[in-house]
Amino acid sequence: MLEQLKQQVLEANLALPHYQLVTFTWGNVSAVDRERGVLVIKPSGVDYRDMRAEDMVVVDLASGETLEGRLRPSSDTATHRALYLAWPEVGGIVHTHSRYATIWAQAGRTIPPLGTTHADEFYGAIPCTRLMRTEEIEHDYEWNTGQVIIESVQEPLAVPAILVNAHGPFCWGKDAAAAVHSAVVLEEVACMALHSQQLQPQLSQMQQSLLDLHYLRKHGENAWYGQAR
Amino acid sequence: MLEQLKQQVLEANLALPHYQLVTFTWGNVSAVDRERGVLVIKPSGVDYRDMRAEDMVVVDLASGETLEGRLRPSSDTATHRALYLAWPEVGGIVHTHSRYATIWAQAGRTIPPLGTTHADEFYGAIPCTRLMRTEEIEHDYEWNTGQVIIESVQEPLAVPAILVNAHGPFCWGKDAAAAVHSAVVLEEVACMALHSQQLQPQLSQMQQSLLDLHYLRKHGENAWYGQAR
Amino acid sequence: MLEQLKQQVLEANLALPHYQLVTFTWGNVSAVDRERGVLVIKPSGVDYRDMRAEDMVVVDLASGETLEGRLRPSSDTATHRALYLAWPEVGGIVHTHSRYATIWAQAGRTIPPLGTTHADEFYGAIPCTRLMRTEEIEHDYEWNTGQVIIESVQEPLAVPAILVNAHGPFCWGKDAAAAVHSAVVLEEVACMALHSQQLQPQLSQMQQSLLDLHYLRKHGENAWYGQAR
Amino acid sequence: MLEQLKQQVLEANLALPHYQLVTFTWGNVSAVDRERGVLVIKPSGVDYRDMRAEDMVVVDLASGETLEGRLRPSSDTATHRALYLAWPEVGGIVHTHSRYATIWAQAGRTIPPLGTTHADEFYGAIPCTRLMRTEEIEHDYEWNTGQVIIESVQEPLAVPAILVNAHGPFCWGKDAAAAVHSAVVLEEVACMALHSQQLQPQLSQMQQSLLDLHYLRKHGENAWYGQAR
Repeated sequence: MLEQLKQQVLEANLALPHYQLVTFTWGNVSAVDRERGVLVIKPSGVDYRDMRAEDMVVVDLASGETLEGRLRPSSDTATHRALYLAWPEVGGIVHTHSRYATIWAQAGRTIPPLGTTHADEFYGAIPCTRLMRTEEIEHDYEWNTGQVIIESVQEPLAVPAILVNAHGPFCWGKDAAAAVHSAVVLEEVACMALHSQQLQPQLSQMQQSLLDLHYLRKHGENAWYGQAR
Repeated sequence: MLEQLKQQVLEANLALPHYQLVTFTWGNVSAVDRERGVLVIKPSGVDYRDMRAEDMVVVDLASGETLEGRLRPSSDTATHRALYLAWPEVGGIVHTHSRYATIWAQAGRTIPPLGTTHADEFYGAIPCTRLMRTEEIEHDYEWNTGQVIIESVQEPLAVPAILVNAHGPFCWGKDAAAAVHSAVVLEEVACMALHSQQLQPQLSQMQQSLLDLHYLRKHGENAWYGQAR
Repeated sequence: MLEQLKQQVLEANLALPHYQLVTFTWGNVSAVDRERGVLVIKPSGVDYRDMRAEDMVVVDLASGETLEGRLRPSSDTATHRALYLAWPEVGGIVHTHSRYATIWAQAGRTIPPLGTTHADEFYGAIPCTRLMRTEEIEHDYEWNTGQVIIESVQEPLAVPAILVNAHGPFCWGKDAAAAVHSAVVLEEVACMALHSQQLQPQLSQMQQSLLDLHYLRKHGENAWYGQAR
Repeated sequence: MLEQLKQQVLEANLALPHYQLVTFTWGNVSAVDRERGVLVIKPSGVDYRDMRAEDMVVVDLASGETLEGRLRPSSDTATHRALYLAWPEVGGIVHTHSRYATIWAQAGRTIPPLGTTHADEFYGAIPCTRLMRTEEIEHDYEWNTGQVIIESVQEPLAVPAILVNAHGPFCWGKDAAAAVHSAVVLEEVACMALHSQQLQPQLSQMQQSLLDLHYLRKHGENAWYGQAR
């Protein structure tokens, strides 16, 4: 069964260059197997073109130890672990430095919901974390990155993305593919929101009723969008 | 004959990713057969790469019922129906969330005509609809989206595009291919207008005589552009 | 010999989509044969993918009459003719609606020389024409477009490009390939200048001595750049 | 052994169009062989598509004379020589007119470190050189370009990039591939910083502790990023 998960994680990682979300090796996707208590993640600093399913690294969720894999896991593994441990409903996580999401992260600004493209995926603003304290940076940095994310999130699957201040986005979902989907939408809404505010500097947030309608027709209990009913 | 219309609608839908107007499945094109009183439209939430002519859905124009097709029609079908019923001269409609047109829609701003690229396709400003009222959103949302569009349009074929506030563009034309053509031009003029106003914030509108000349040499009764005379 | 010129004009036209300077059929390149008193130009409104050398149209330079070709010449032919008649040193002309050059044209602004990328190709600012008067638009529009260009240009080969106000760029050179080269550089410097001024709003013009050095090492009598000495 | 260096320099030059850092022939990469006292550099004004390893030019580091090669070396060779002579730790140099780095260079502005994308490659701000004096431009321009770069750099491998005022970027590294890597990262951080400052005009610099952590985990003596430990 882990072979299947490794394949899913590989494919989700390969989707990052496909959607132009990464330069070089700047990005990583993981997925979790809750029953076995492990996560599967991209190896650190390896070229996407050379990556195979067997290169994916299996890490113990509780301890962070590598259980299987010739290569070292992504340097951001502790951040992924922190999120999986805090959020049982999450099955996949992705981190990138995608251009427009990172632009907002560097500006330390939350992305307001300005239109239905945003509302179709995210049920409200995409928050930006607070600055980390020096001691949080100097000790257990990657783990603490997870902690400041968790602080800022109320309902992970309602807004499955965050901007880490002065860093870049993390996204998540029920599995690795869903996390990548959110990463793609985030990048698009980040670009659009930047330019909409250039056109209309006092722009704040779309109507709540329109946000509700669009989010809930795709994600609510009574969702009616697409082929599934 | 519907086979031919399905093929045209398929090709028009496939033109959306070709011209980089859509991400994932965010877009749909339809065309109408006035004699039979039906429209043919893309199925909802289906990947462009997997779409075939026989997947196109045939919908009754008057009632909105699906007459033919294994799949559910686009969730925006009621908007398309509203426009076809209001505008007998329109034969094809396209909806996208293309980046720059959506940026203007999110800003709630009309795109002024600033140059001949605009005037070659659109005979004046591209309007942005008013905000929808809560009751219009909560009941018959897609149909009401059509109604706020109709409110804002005087002569559909003179300016075959609109920005739905906080949402994105709808474009149309005598057939599906013409609607896609307008969608491509709209995206380009939306990008240009945003940046021209960045360079010259007080910019308002091009000379009327230049707008007339360019529009009419391509679209007027005495059009002299291209190979047709 | 006209076969060779048609082939050059075809290749120069095909370079426009290659360098992403055109959408649909929005662009045209011509070249002149001074001895025969003719110009060869792209047909009007024909798809770049279907174009062949034999589709190029031969037009009499003095009268504007079509001498050879099944198709009608570009609707901008009279503008090309006006420039060739005014400037004996020019051998090729290109017109596009390339995105960033058009953005400056719509803003009605001259592009100042802000760096060596500009100076390597253009010996000074790229001017924007005055607005055309209504009578110039309503009668002989394309010919008069040429006249307002000519008004604004002192030494055609020193700054081989101009922005037609509320329209887009025309570029030229000793032959069709040189004109396309200028069109590519113009688009790049237009994009850079817009954003440099965003970063530094009071930016005016680079040092004259640096402009001289870069332009003259490539174009002066004593040019020493490249393989030719 | 020079065959190997020529091959490396060829590949590094071909990486420039691959990463979309150059238009036409606007860019050049060199590498140095310290034992032999020579540098290998791209020929001047030659199309990337036609370039082969044997076209690379071997130049004497001390005198600047061409030792081997049918073609003339890049016109920027004297700048490369100046940097190699000043900085014994540098093994490869790249010059481009990449869009966003050049936009900052034209604005005469230093790029502040605003996020971890920057900190992963550059240990602090990327400086912009002072304007060159007329006599520096008129005599030994390319050599003097090197001198103003050297003036502005304290520790070359800590911040392996600079913006030459009103010109464009130079980057460097332990070898040609490392220099290209810095050029790619520079272009990305230049784009991000421009837009982050648009979103937050008073933005100055990221936290020093975060800059330290990210730079040192990849580049310090105790670097722990990637597969190498």
